[in-house]
Order: sequence, then C-alpha cells, then structure tokens
Amino acid sequence: MRAVCVIGLGLIGGSVLRAAARAGRPVWGATASSEDREAAVADGFTVLPVEEALAKAAEADALVVLAVPLPAVDEVLRTVASVAPSCLLTDVVSVKSAVASAVARRAPGVRYAGGHPMAGRSASGWAAGSADLFDGAPWVVATDEEVPAEAWRAAVSLALGCGAHVVPTTSGEHDAAVARISHLPHVLAAVLAATGADGGPLALSLAAGSFADGTRVAGTRAELVLAMCEGNREQLLDAVDDALGRLGAARGALASTGGLAATIRAGNEARAGLVALRETPREELRIDLTDPEAFEDLRSLGSGGGRILRLEGDIAIADLPD
Amino acid sequence: MRAVCVIGLGLIGGSVLRAAARAGRPVWGATASSEDREAAVADGFTVLPVEEALAKAAEADALVVLAVPLPAVDEVLRTVASVAPSCLLTDVVSVKSAVASAVARRAPGVRYAGGHPMAGRSASGWAAGSADLFDGAPWVVATDEEVPAEAWRAAVSLALGCGAHVVPTTSGEHDAAVARISHLPHVLAAVLAATGADGGPLALSLAAGSFADGTRVAGTRAELVLAMCEGNREQLLDAVDDALGRLGAARGALASTGGLAATIRAGNEARAGLVALRETPREELRIDLTDPEAFEDLRSLGSGGGRILRLEGDIAIADLPD
Repeated sequence: MRAVCVIGLGLIGGSVLRAAARAGRPVWGATASSEDREAAVADGFTVLPVEEALAKAAEADALVVLAVPLPAVDEVLRTVASVAPSCLLTDVVSVKSAVASAVARRAPGVRYAGGHPMAGRSASGWAAGSADLFDGAPWVVATDEEVPAEAWRAAVSLALGCGAHVVPTTSGEHDAAVARISHLPHVLAAVLAATGADGGPLALSLAAGSFADGTRVAGTRAELVLAMCEGNREQLLDAVDDALGRLGAARGALASTGGLAATIRAGNEARAGLVALRETPREELRIDLTDPEAFEDLRSLGSGGGRILRLEGDIAIADLPD
Repeated sequence: MRAVCVIGLGLIGGSVLRAAARAGRPVWGATASSEDREAAVADGFTVLPVEEALAKAAEADALVVLAVPLPAVDEVLRTVASVAPSCLLTDVVSVKSAVASAVARRAPGVRYAGGHPMAGRSASGWAAGSADLFDGAPWVVATDEEVPAEAWRAAVSLALGCGAHVVPTTSGEHDAAVARISHLPHVLAAVLAATGADGGPLALSLAAGSFADGTRVAGTRAELVLAMCEGNREQLLDAVDDALGRLGAARGALASTGGLAATIRAGNEARAGLVALRETPREELRIDLTDPEAFEDLRSLGSGGGRILRLEGDIAIADLPD
C-alpha cells in the first residue's frame, strides 16, 4: 500500500495519520506545533522536520496530505515545490478552490487532487483526534476535469481506507455546498450566541437544549473558523445573503401579520429532507474508471447525493438515493 | 402534599403528571387528545373529562396546571372560570405575559402564578415524556408584584418537587429572555435548514455536525414552534432585529474587508460565557419569604442568574454565581 506523509498534525491531520496507520499503511508526519509533535511521538508515530518528511515522500512516491489551516498552505507549498516538486498531493483543508489556486501557483509540478473529510469536533490539536474520526463520514475528493487520474485514485484510496465514503464533485460545487452546511452554521451560531448573551445572566441561566445546540460550534477555536469562512468568501457571501433574505422575510411577517408559518414550515420541511436523505433506500451502481466519461458520471453522482463506497480494481462501487 | 391536576398531557404536561406522582402527590389529568389519554391511562394514571378534573381540583384545593399550547389556553380558562373559579393555578406554557393577560381576562378569580420549565425534546405527546424530564432544569415561576404569595408558593413547590430549580423573574423579563435563548434559536434553525436545503442533495449529503446541531430544533412540530414564537411577538421582534443587525454587520465586513473576526470572536466569547456560567462557583443565600421585600430580592436573584434550590419552611435556599 502507498505510504502517507501528513503535514500538519492537528485534529484532522492527526486523525488521518492514525487512520492511515490503522489501514496498514506506512505513515509519517510533520508539524510546526511542538505540542502536537510531542504528543504524536509519545503515541509512537514518526514525526520529522517538514523538509525531511517531504524528501522521504518524494523518495517513496508517498501521498502527501496537506493538513494545515488555509493561511499556512502557501508556505508549505513552497517547501513542497523545492523538496518534492512532482509528488502525489492531496489536502484536507475545508475550502477547495483556494487551495487548488495555491497549488497551481506555488507547486505546479505536483500531481494534485484536493480532498475534504466532513468530520470534526469543536476540540482541536493532536490530542482531540482519533483513528475512527472518519468512519462513515463523507469525504469530498475534487473531481475537476484537470485533476490527474493517478492523484484522484490516490486520494480516493486514502479516504476509503480511513473509513469514509467519497463524494466526488468539483472544487466550485464543494465550496458552494460547504458555505451552506458548514460555514453558514458557524456564522449563525456566533450571531445566536452573542444575541443570547445580550440577554444577560437571566437569559443564559434559562438556556436549554435549543440554545446549547444552536451555539455549540461557536465554541470552536476562532482562528480555525476564520480561516475556513474567510477562505470561502464569495460562496459564503451568497449563503449569508440567502439567510439574511429569509430572516428579513421572517421579521417582516412577524411585524406585519404576526405570522411565522412560512419560515417555520420551510425549516421543518428542509430538516425532514435531511433526515429522509439518510433513510432513503439507495441504489447501487458501478462506474468504470477507465471510461473517458468517468469523471462526468462521478460528478453527476455527487450532485445527486451519491457516494463511492469502495473500489474494485478499476470499478467504483457507488450508491445514490433512489 | 397538595394534589395536582394537569390539563393537557403532551410532552410537558405528561411529564409534570409523572414527576408530581413521583414526588408522592395525588395527581389526575385531562386532555383533548384521545391518543395521549389512552397512553396515560395505560400507564396507570387517572384521566378525567376536563370539567370533572377541574371540579375535583376545586373540591380538593388542588393546584391546577395548564399544559396546553397557547392557542388553546383561552378555551380551558373559560372552563376553569365556570367550574373552579377560585382555584390555585399555574401553567407551563412557554410565554408568560400572554397567559397572564388571558387569566386576568377569562378567570380573574383564580389564584395564579405563571410557570415555565425550561426542558424539552423535539418529540411530542405523552409517549415522549418522563418523570425525570425536569431533573436539574431551570423552571421559571413568575414573581410579578401582583402574584398572590399562596399561588407563588404552590407553583414553586411543584417545580422543586419535580426535580427542577426555580428561577424567579417577572413575566416580561422571562419573555424577553426566552425570545433570545429559545424562540430565536428556532427561527435561526429554520433559516439555516432552508438555506442549506437550497444547496441541493450534494449539500445535504455533506452535512455534518455543525449543520445537524444547528438545525436540530427545526425538526420540532411546527404548530408548537408557531404557538410559542407568535405568542411572544414583540420580544421576539427585538431579538430577531438584534440578530439581523449582527448578521448584516457580518455580511458587510465579509464583503468589504473579507474579515469576520468581530462576528466570530463575539460568538466565541458569548459561548465561553455560557459555559463559564455553569462552572462558576456559586454562593448560597437565604431569602425570608415573609419579608415584605422578598419578591424584590427574588427578582434580583433571577436577574443575576440565581435560582432557588429548596424551601425550608418560610426560607428559600438559593444560590447565585459569584
């Protein structure tokens, strides 16, 4: 099995390192954090200076996984370009277009397919990670036209080996989707937490499940939230504008007729749709990866809520809600 | 111990009936739902037609607990006024000013102190309830100047007996607080669910913890949410306006400088404040309920995030964050 070199050993990178090792792959990592390095070494993993880790990856034709926050990506890519300029590369950063541009600019010789596992916790750092973090989770692998097939296969194999299923889609569609289901939730949680706190100690002393749930992700480290939200500015603006429109309409209806039915029923239906999607019977299908149209089929699969469950040679075994 | 008659045997009313029985009180109930009635009877409880239940309460000087949704309150109060016109009355409806006005209008002879246990689940009906629903939860008892001391004591005893602690505050302050920490979360969850669903199956297939948590309460039955939100219109408008202001400011900052730091950091601090309030050491204090200033002291206690833990004769044992 292909070796894996993970750059960045926080919650996500640290969990990738453990999950890849669980899958039986040779693994090593690098991190700028002495705390994460010491913890990973104490857990028995090999942690090298970043140049050494990348040189070893180049020698072994390992898959390099970028697992640093977006603001640190450029600097790591400079080192990649000088030490492992044609390596196989993926990443686990929460925006895809921005990373793809940075790769094209800083390390144009690498064989790159972006990735994004949709799993997280509000805690961060190596200590918060675990080998099973991705079990059953969706993991996006960028399936843009220009992605080299070899890099795509390497990223998909890693994701499946880490226990995830793969959602194939373009960088742009990924960024638009996560703006709505990951970045907007952080913005609304922050707005709710601050608006609630303005009610003073009485309000906070009465806060029960709805407020606790609605503000949970506001407890995430601010730097991580800012990196992902600000790195997806255009798509997040679209999502925030939609939310502002809906909230403004609710405000208008409440002020004029006193009725919130349109808002509450739309939310109720949307939530039911989310639950139903998980319970809908799914149809299995097989996509031949040697077919020249394969990427197009894979993108349709992703757009329809489908996912790749495993690879059997050149065949992707997938399923799709009926 | 004083008997308890619960009108409405859904999630909250059904749980009050069970919790009061657990505390050793004689209990009986009434409900317009044949499903809830059959389930309660099957669980061994006495369920009577509403007139009979109230007549029995008048005879026993029982505490009557109104546990119907706000839109049904007026009709039950008409029956109260004709069958038990001077009974001891409390309620567990999620807004307080609207219920207090209805009581003053429909049943002016009752001895009334409003109440609101801050516990819930997204499921509803008798089957969703349990005797331990209120254990450790805050339970507001309205401590407005005009509340009769006898009714206040009866409502407080019930709440404490059900395992809750009591937060004393005015109806108006309660309504302003729950607009922020209970009703606004429902509105924002609905907005988030609908905005996410607009991203199509791809977006929903990627939804992980932040979206699932942020939309959970959007799964609550729409009628229940509408009753509480629309019944607290003025206070909810204030809260929605604050949220719109904060979301608009986030939008503006993202569009102009690309920065969301002010929004995200304010949310992060507010969430930390919520967590800290729960972990702050608390100072115990004793309030003499025979003191003419007692209600004023109790309202200050509630405003400061304090709560009544138990009664020892005429002394309320309370605590307050340091």
